[in-house]
Amino acid sequence: MEDSLRIGLAGLGTVGTGVLRNLSEHRSLLKERCGKEIRVVAVSARSRHKDRGIDLGSIEWEDDPVSLASRDDIDIFVELIGGENGPAKTSIQAALGAGRHVVTANKALLAHHGHLLAELAESHGVCLRFEAAVAGGIPIIKVLTEALAGNRFTRIAGVMNGTCNYILTRMEAAGLAYDEVFAEAESLGYLEADPNLDVGGIDAGHKLSILSAIAFGTRIDFDSVTLEGIQRVSIADIEYAAELGYRVKLLGLAQMNDEGLQQSMQPCLVPASSPLGQLEGADNMVVVTGEPVGQIVLRGAGAGEGPTASAVVGDIIDIARGGSGLALGRPCATLSTPAISADTGISAFYLRLDLVDQPGVMAKVASALAGAGVSIDRMRQKSHRNLSAPVLIVSHPVASSAIDQALIAISDTGVCTDPPVALRIESG
Amino acid sequence: MEDSLRIGLAGLGTVGTGVLRNLSEHRSLLKERCGKEIRVVAVSARSRHKDRGIDLGSIEWEDDPVSLASRDDIDIFVELIGGENGPAKTSIQAALGAGRHVVTANKALLAHHGHLLAELAESHGVCLRFEAAVAGGIPIIKVLTEALAGNRFTRIAGVMNGTCNYILTRMEAAGLAYDEVFAEAESLGYLEADPNLDVGGIDAGHKLSILSAIAFGTRIDFDSVTLEGIQRVSIADIEYAAELGYRVKLLGLAQMNDEGLQQSMQPCLVPASSPLGQLEGADNMVVVTGEPVGQIVLRGAGAGEGPTASAVVGDIIDIARGGSGLALGRPCATLSTPAISADTGISAFYLRLDLVDQPGVMAKVASALAGAGVSIDRMRQKSHRNLSAPVLIVSHPVASSAIDQALIAISDTGVCTDPPVALRIESG
Repeated sequence: MEDSLRIGLAGLGTVGTGVLRNLSEHRSLLKERCGKEIRVVAVSARSRHKDRGIDLGSIEWEDDPVSLASRDDIDIFVELIGGENGPAKTSIQAALGAGRHVVTANKALLAHHGHLLAELAESHGVCLRFEAAVAGGIPIIKVLTEALAGNRFTRIAGVMNGTCNYILTRMEAAGLAYDEVFAEAESLGYLEADPNLDVGGIDAGHKLSILSAIAFGTRIDFDSVTLEGIQRVSIADIEYAAELGYRVKLLGLAQMNDEGLQQSMQPCLVPASSPLGQLEGADNMVVVTGEPVGQIVLRGAGAGEGPTASAVVGDIIDIARGGSGLALGRPCATLSTPAISADTGISAFYLRLDLVDQPGVMAKVASALAGAGVSIDRMRQKSHRNLSAPVLIVSHPVASSAIDQALIAISDTGVCTDPPVALRIESG
Repeated sequence: MEDSLRIGLAGLGTVGTGVLRNLSEHRSLLKERCGKEIRVVAVSARSRHKDRGIDLGSIEWEDDPVSLASRDDIDIFVELIGGENGPAKTSIQAALGAGRHVVTANKALLAHHGHLLAELAESHGVCLRFEAAVAGGIPIIKVLTEALAGNRFTRIAGVMNGTCNYILTRMEAAGLAYDEVFAEAESLGYLEADPNLDVGGIDAGHKLSILSAIAFGTRIDFDSVTLEGIQRVSIADIEYAAELGYRVKLLGLAQMNDEGLQQSMQPCLVPASSPLGQLEGADNMVVVTGEPVGQIVLRGAGAGEGPTASAVVGDIIDIARGGSGLALGRPCATLSTPAISADTGISAFYLRLDLVDQPGVMAKVASALAGAGVSIDRMRQKSHRNLSAPVLIVSHPVASSAIDQALIAISDTGVCTDPPVALRIESG
């Protein structure tokens, strides 16, 4: 490497433009901090002549990101194209194969091909860094792989999709239904081109699968993430949860237990006074539990030009300083393929049962719960609406299989006017 | 460096013992993560035969930490003796001088001699790392020097002394006076041998001075930190602040403005719903504001065996992996000596005036405030107690000099039964 570090950057959308702007505006500060100048040599993007509000002046242009990735005069290839296949993947493979370091923000690509790419980086002795791929400006990758590397992690929990958290907190604040807030979010441009990536929990699930691999030393296994989006979260449940002292979050959770690795991304209740419960708006938060550190909470913007550019440039600086970390914090050969555990451990559950308004109904419900071994911590019956009365139940901690069994038994008695709702309650 | 990394560890108190335990219990995990075995070769402490609940078995003993620091068979000297001078300082100097890397948790030493030691490390081409010195298990040093190195920082704010936060939140929760909770904390062993280090804000001030040097690229300047402890925070003000939607925190604040660097550690009000306002108990929190990342919040245990050991071991792992970071994130020669700014910028203030119960008093207060250019955002007069009536005022944002001037003018009118109280209101 020379006195300057030479960058080839593919993808000039919001983030790519933000990275260029940051490298240019903070040029002297960055040189002081990493001892060499960071210079963008060449870029590639779909449209050469689009006005991006920045001067590409002396930067060379490549039409093909793979050609850019293979240039002899770059030290780092920065991939900000996106997409789990296509040019993002082929250009990163070309760069790593040519012995170039790679920095990417591409969570979908890593969730699906991260292991392959990490092996490629390792075999060529170069860095593959992706701080920007998870939780935007929050430096969770570095914190897990480096700062907390002395810990045995027991649990990673987090809100990792700002759009979902925006929708859920906005529903609660304004008392609006999901569809109304979804439409608002769409009109504000908060959603991905395929909104299901956001509201279906897929984007957040990609991020979770990357974090759990790093935390537990396993191969990235996105396919084993239990995924449920926020589309069926009702304003009624958000309001009932609030009454009971909880907030509804699209909660990512990764835990290693005796059975194996358990990963889920699904709507859960967390105490309103907990760090995750207090998280409003589009911020992300990751709660790391490890031994001996205890609990560390990180919060910040999970997306957007500035936060994402901060993460990308942080990775570039690390490489400029000679950092040599392995992509997943340890050699790929040591990463295990754990059993997939469906066991989420025991936890309390929130149940909402809309019951027909008839004598003897509560007795049937209570007996179905007891039969499944579900014990009631708190119960509230709300006043009748139309022909049914919503009953809210907070269970004592119990296995989710017991809850499933109880719900079937309750449904079988024919006392519900609507399908019962069950949401896990997690510490936040 | 060989296939194993050899440690000499001085100081076997809670933290030293915790580090030994962590290195031993996580031996194979650590080897996987950093590619070499971490081995404690020799230790030093005051008392050789004290029962520490761990087996020092094959570890050699040195009576003198300076001899330990100079041994040929260690790669890293870990200083956990404490104290801003004496053996901590001389042994670190010996280690750096002998070309050994140093890891320390000693905030007092760094606040006073950090620049000297960083220069020594730099000139010998070795690492000086001190993640554990600030905010315990929270990896704020690494986050500022590495993860967020692409940012221009504008503000560092934080609660950095868990004991003070415990006392303040316990006062509010139990409605107890400072002296009562102080006695409780003392009996629980929460306080330093010299309690003024905690409640006088000195310990937290040490930490702030280290963070602000890293964030703003300046020499560490603890002497310029405006220091005020929590000893004069009254339960009355805590309760009035809560009524107005605020919490009282011992708040560290570092900002660079046109005049220079402003550092303060003093009781302030923050909105109860803000991240800092929600921080209860003995946790620490640091809020970093930078461009382009925006705001990043980190929270965790600020002290204790586990969290501190996690930070020390994280530094050791970085060195084992060949990390070569500069102590303060950039070369010492580039660190500036900024002007000291007393200007805290404008902020809202909370004022409590205990006024004599006479006609015309409020007119005098209002006129004194107006004369000093202080404009009132909210005001509440409480019912009379004895001969005086407390009046609470939240000002619009204003320079602290205007508040000082207003308080003098108010006092001069002779309407106060007690000295007026003024506390800054900061965003949290």
